[in-house]
Order: sequence, then structure tokens, then C-alpha cells
Amino acid sequence: MKKLKRSSRLVDMTYFLLQNPQQLISLSHFSERYGSAKSSISEDLAIIKDIFESERMGYLMTEPGVSGGIRYEPALSAGQAHALVDKLCSRLEDPERLLPGGYLYMMDVLGQPGLMNQVGRLFAGIYRGKHIDVVMTMATKGIPLAYAVASYLDVPVSIVRRDHRITEGSVVSINYVSGSAKRIQTMSLARRSIPAGSRVLIVDDFMKGGGTAKGMSELLTEVNAHLVDIAVLVEADTKERLIDDYISLVQLAEVNEQTNQIKASPGNFKHYLAD
Amino acid sequence: MKKLKRSSRLVDMTYFLLQNPQQLISLSHFSERYGSAKSSISEDLAIIKDIFESERMGYLMTEPGVSGGIRYEPALSAGQAHALVDKLCSRLEDPERLLPGGYLYMMDVLGQPGLMNQVGRLFAGIYRGKHIDVVMTMATKGIPLAYAVASYLDVPVSIVRRDHRITEGSVVSINYVSGSAKRIQTMSLARRSIPAGSRVLIVDDFMKGGGTAKGMSELLTEVNAHLVDIAVLVEADTKERLIDDYISLVQLAEVNEQTNQIKASPGNFKHYLAD
Repeated sequence: MKKLKRSSRLVDMTYFLLQNPQQLISLSHFSERYGSAKSSISEDLAIIKDIFESERMGYLMTEPGVSGGIRYEPALSAGQAHALVDKLCSRLEDPERLLPGGYLYMMDVLGQPGLMNQVGRLFAGIYRGKHIDVVMTMATKGIPLAYAVASYLDVPVSIVRRDHRITEGSVVSINYVSGSAKRIQTMSLARRSIPAGSRVLIVDDFMKGGGTAKGMSELLTEVNAHLVDIAVLVEADTKERLIDDYISLVQLAEVNEQTNQIKASPGNFKHYLAD
Repeated sequence: MKKLKRSSRLVDMTYFLLQNPQQLISLSHFSERYGSAKSSISEDLAIIKDIFESERMGYLMTEPGVSGGIRYEPALSAGQAHALVDKLCSRLEDPERLLPGGYLYMMDVLGQPGLMNQVGRLFAGIYRGKHIDVVMTMATKGIPLAYAVASYLDVPVSIVRRDHRITEGSVVSINYVSGSAKRIQTMSLARRSIPAGSRVLIVDDFMKGGGTAKGMSELLTEVNAHLVDIAVLVEADTKERLIDDYISLVQLAEVNEQTNQIKASPGNFKHYLAD
């Protein structure tokens, strides 16, 4: 790469950091890339850190020493997180999405990559420093959010399925009782998708009774992995819940088919924000 | 926002452009955000454009006039695209992924958000300017790549399913013959996920006979939408293919269970790269 001026270096470094979240990047990497002294690179990074933090783009963490460097950890500020969840709540209250049986159509929300990326950034900020190795989700509707979170945490995704496809190789399966439908179902996990000892974050779009999440945590026990936490976009209001520890962004307080009303309010995520 | 120096503005603008691909952003937006003259903003953008294009981060397109502005269009350069596909080919040739029946385990590749994002950027570059309104995919394994492509094209994703879930509302279903398994199956699409008249890009992880892709294109006809093209990560080598127009990144030339050998080579994408 040809020698660059500071202004060009700043653009290139910002791009590089955003493309490589959670990775420790040494000063030497940049100083070799631009043919610049490490002292200049340090000044560049100070400028970037300053604007990242004042504009709440996430954290730029510096690790000192020979093996040190800089690491970009995406996050939303408390203000950005609340604004995002308020937007989600008002979108979810649209009576158009009410389906027979009190179900909600959510694919218009889940189908927006830009919105999922924002939610992913919010969760990645909450779980930064929690040493997550794998994000696990349930096919189909949990997948978009799981990838968004995993992308910002820079970890792989493992998909649990209700059917067993031949293209997954050896699987571990369990039966579970779906909390909402009270039906016995089967879920399967490809063994090689979660190495033993992994620290796992479960991500899903919706939780009612928690039967699915509980089944997924049992699958983790089967493959000797550890459940760190459960993150859901929307939780239904229910008294019978099989699990206690989870973080939700939105809580459905009321879904009324008679009056055609949906009431959504912020979930318990607010207790887990950094600022 | 407080008045920023050029160096800080460059970091903030780079971040903003990367977060908002395909969106036309007026000079006024930036000049108001930073309290700077439009002439300064123009100089900033010239610096950013120069480094984005010399380092192949995609295109920064300028539209002149009162309603004009700047638009970031993500892409990979031809060199980056070939390097990525070569890496995919050598990963896919790992005999460990061979499953009974000649199927390939691909979730380790599909499960990596960072890798999917790179592939998404490649396809977004190929389809830039093609006025895609929706990316459509097949559950489950097509979803990660579909979101990556849609994220860079800034369009929603519509997911076709083999089952029909109650949470999708009104659906249109068709029967189709899976080209590889020669079985009659059903696929369903939530009607409200693709408005009539939409220009649709089908994205999938794997194509053999093309029966699934053909079924999806028939679903598009049912909802009065237009198929623009089909983009697949991996195509199997086969003589019987139901569709002709598609772009693939990787072609499996040989999958031999006896010798435990997989041969993968670059697909036809190379004819569609800009440079």
C-alpha cells in the first residue's frame, strides 16, 4: 500500500476496524500497512477512539504491551438502545399484524437486515466481555437476529432444527414440550457445530413459555457446552415460564383479538445497559 | 453535534456511510451535522471517495443537483472476489465434510457471519444498479447468505418455507419437484412479504437440479413479482438443470464417496465482475 496521509489513514482504519469487530489489531499492523511510525498510528487511533466514544459507535479498547493493540467492540449507547426499542414497540403495536389465535406476524420486522443489525449491535454491546464462543438459535425465524448478534461478536452461529436434515451429519436430538402449544416436539443440533466446552448465547425472536429455550439449553448439556444467557427480541406476557434468566427487548403486555389491540413495552434489557 | 475538525469528520462520515449502504445522503445532511460549509464537506467526501476506491471498499457515487448527494455501494474488487472464492473452494474440498449419499456438510462455512458478509458484499457488488427490491431465499440454510446480500443492498428478505407456519398469515403455496431427490414437496410464501411488482433476487446456499429455484420463481409469478436473477453459493455439477440463468461462486466438479475426494472450482461469477 502506498504511503498515506493522516486523513486517508483515518478513513482506511475506520473501515478496517468496523469490518473486524472484536479482533485485537496490533499497532504494527497499521504501521506496516501505511509505512508510518507507530507514534503517528497512536495519534490516529486516539482521534478515532475519541469520535467513536463521543458519537457512541461502540468501544475502542487499547491493550498495552508487546502483544497489545486495539480492539473494536460494537455497542449501542443507552439512549440509542431505548430509541430503537421504542421504535420496535410502536411497530409491533400495529393491529395489522394480529393473526388468528392471537399470533403476531413479525416477518416484516425480522425481514429487515438493517433493523436486525441494529438489534444485533445492541445485544453485542450487552454481551461484550462475556466470552461468548457460539451463538445458538432455532430455525427459522431466530436466524436473522442470531447472525446479526454473532456478526458483531465475531463468533459462529449454530442452528437448531425441528426436523433432521441429512446435510447436518451426526446430530443430537431431544424431545421437548413447547410451552405455548403444549405439544411434544423434537429438536436437533448438528454435533460438530458446537465444540465441547463452548460458552453459548441463545438468541431467538420470540419467547412465550420458554419451552424452546429450555430444550435448547438441554441440547447444550448433551454436547457439554455452557449456556451463558438467553437473548430474545420479544417475550409474551405469561405467568408460566420455564426459564428465569434471559434478556428481552420487548414485552408484549396485551394481545387482544376482540378489541384488535396489541400493547408492547420495553423488556428487561434496560437493567443490563452499560450507561 | 459539536463542531468537528476534518480528522474527526472523516471518521464519523466513514462510519455513517458504512452503516447506510445504498442510501442517497445529501451534502446538507453532513454540513448540518458538523456545522461545516458544504465546500468543506465536498473536500471530505473527495478524500473518502479516493481511499474507498483505491482500497476497493466499494463505490462512492455522487449525484449532482439540488436533490443530489452521495451514495455508498458496497462491492468487492475482482481480485478480492477471486481470493474469497479460492478460499471457499479449498475449504469445501476438505474431505471431512463428506456425508453419506454424497452430501456435504456446509454449516461450518454458512455458520460464519464474517465469511457470509464477505460473500454478501461480493453479490451486492454484482447486483448493484439492478434495482433489486427484495431478496428471497429458502429456509433454512439460504437465510444467512440472503441476509448478508440484502444487508448490503439495503432491501428486505422474504423467506420461503417447506412447512406452513401459522405466524405467516396468508400464504401462497405450490408443489414442486426437487431436482435432486425427485420428490414432490410443497413450498409456501407469506403473501405480504413480497408486494406485487417487486424486483426479486433469489439467493440460496446450494443448487443441484434447480427444482427449488424453479419453484421459487413460480411463487414469484403467483404474487405478480419479477425474478431478476438467482445467486447461489455452491452449484453441484449436473447435466439436468431446470434453470439456465443464475450466478454461482463455487462449482462442485466432483464429489466421490469411494475416493473420499471433493473437487471445487470457481463458478460462473467471474463473468459478472465489474473489473
